[in-house]
Amino acid sequence: MIETPYLLFLGDAPDQLAAKVAQGIRDWRPDNAVGQFRLPGCAVSVGLNDMTLEEAKAAGAKTLVIGVANRGGVISDKWKAVLIEALSMGFDLASGLHNLLRNEADLVMAAKANGRMLHDVRIPSVQYPIANGEKRTGKRMLAVGTDCSVGKMYTALAVDEEMRKRGMKSSFRATGQTGILITGDGVPLDAVIADFMAGSIEYLTPDNDPDHWDIIEGQGSLFHVSYSGVTLALIHGGQPDALVLSHEPTRAHMRGLPGYQLPTLEAVRDMALSLAQVANPDCQVIGVSVNTAAMSEAEALDHLKATEDRMGLPAVDPFRTGAGKLVDALAKI
Amino acid sequence: MIETPYLLFLGDAPDQLAAKVAQGIRDWRPDNAVGQFRLPGCAVSVGLNDMTLEEAKAAGAKTLVIGVANRGGVISDKWKAVLIEALSMGFDLASGLHNLLRNEADLVMAAKANGRMLHDVRIPSVQYPIANGEKRTGKRMLAVGTDCSVGKMYTALAVDEEMRKRGMKSSFRATGQTGILITGDGVPLDAVIADFMAGSIEYLTPDNDPDHWDIIEGQGSLFHVSYSGVTLALIHGGQPDALVLSHEPTRAHMRGLPGYQLPTLEAVRDMALSLAQVANPDCQVIGVSVNTAAMSEAEALDHLKATEDRMGLPAVDPFRTGAGKLVDALAKI
Repeated sequence: MIETPYLLFLGDAPDQLAAKVAQGIRDWRPDNAVGQFRLPGCAVSVGLNDMTLEEAKAAGAKTLVIGVANRGGVISDKWKAVLIEALSMGFDLASGLHNLLRNEADLVMAAKANGRMLHDVRIPSVQYPIANGEKRTGKRMLAVGTDCSVGKMYTALAVDEEMRKRGMKSSFRATGQTGILITGDGVPLDAVIADFMAGSIEYLTPDNDPDHWDIIEGQGSLFHVSYSGVTLALIHGGQPDALVLSHEPTRAHMRGLPGYQLPTLEAVRDMALSLAQVANPDCQVIGVSVNTAAMSEAEALDHLKATEDRMGLPAVDPFRTGAGKLVDALAKI
Repeated sequence: MIETPYLLFLGDAPDQLAAKVAQGIRDWRPDNAVGQFRLPGCAVSVGLNDMTLEEAKAAGAKTLVIGVANRGGVISDKWKAVLIEALSMGFDLASGLHNLLRNEADLVMAAKANGRMLHDVRIPSVQYPIANGEKRTGKRMLAVGTDCSVGKMYTALAVDEEMRKRGMKSSFRATGQTGILITGDGVPLDAVIADFMAGSIEYLTPDNDPDHWDIIEGQGSLFHVSYSGVTLALIHGGQPDALVLSHEPTRAHMRGLPGYQLPTLEAVRDMALSLAQVANPDCQVIGVSVNTAAMSEAEALDHLKATEDRMGLPAVDPFRTGAGKLVDALAKI
């Protein structure tokens, strides 16, 4: 667990996309952040108050979260000075960067000297069990995609938020570094050893109240040959009661695989449901979540209506329409 | 490389399946093993002479191979005394267990003190790429099972052997510790980081002569919730031209999962083929391999005949009938 609240480090981020981790925290767990810290030259803001380390400390911040992708895969000297000062002031550090905090000797020294933690959320911090497949109490939802990066995390966060608004019991369960930094906990599934993938998801979604929902962040796609094994481990470890189909309708081919066409929603529905029912015979497909960011409002609403008619399932774009229809369907399970 | 011949350590193995590493070496490279070593309580034999460490040393053994694969891979304290004694007598150790010889301080000390090697064949020795899904030249066969430990490796080794006998170009491609111990090369797939699983299989089965067959060792089962993700990575990374269905017909439930029934051969055929055709639209299911070890000869032959009639596919038990019918079918592709 990463201690909250955070100060969000934006460094010298060149554009909004580079700050997607910070933006995710700001959008989904605003109470987890007291403010943002920007270096000279930073071109973005996530709309929080700019704070010095001292101001953030006074406001109660416990952890400086690197909310930005760094340039060139190197933690620059400009960043280092701030990170080391933060450690000396009693902040922990948390990062989802490929190059690890723990591999930077000066950060390790400063953390030790000040008794602080370095959280590299890409690296599993737990020895996960092998999955035992036993039925767990409580309910679970998983978004399965036609492709990678079609909006599965966003869908899960939106469903979780809508459930909480309605007073339902819900936990967003992060399976990637952005989700882990947003919530402070989770499983970095793409870095887990093969034999323990499904077990890590059982660990992440343990027995719970019968009316509690784990809203599990999806990864990859059964139809994406690079990552399909990760997706199946999520389906079998998560033993979902409900699947949501996630789709981005304007994509020309599978992400990173120019020779591969996207599957139809029907193909994903049939394949994912057959596989999910191995672990949970009662699993149902309850709706569709479409990322319509590349469409006009009218096109998007037409597309959602056509999808509903075609699939016989509620269809939403959680960013545009909210996740209400999905939660309506989940509330009946 | 691991020095041969071996003494096969069976420890206190509770059942024959747990000794599948030792059995595989015994069956496919019998000249590589001088005998077997069993602790009190060991419930299995692989049919070699029982030897003390002294007797094995006198017979020329160079390496003590841990021939048992435990769920979760634990080196018990009962084993330690024997392993340390073996090191002190000049044996190297080789193991495919999850928890590594190199992480056991007492073994490392004993190895260093005696100038011996600790071979952890489960550990990847390569930084595998992320799969790119590009079509490769040459042909590939993969056995997919109704369950774990139903004979997929045996099937692949038997097909490879039969192909070589016929003068066909064939390579057995090991994906687990037994196969790696047998052939000295391969990918320890269950220890590969999730994101690189499919890529490791692309790496293992690169472009080859158009008439060359990679006979890829299968792992797990699409229907075994603990390991299904590993199986799917094999299917998508291997992009097989031909699938063989592997089955053990007398099993009461999925291995290690008392609540889970085995799927039918038809279910495995349909699911595996649908998923395989994502990576290779020309993939076919060409036959069935049945482990009939628990049946009489007459029962076994009846069962194979009934399976052929039911599935419309050649059915063999490679141990009992040889793999000839499978190779006949593969030769037509």
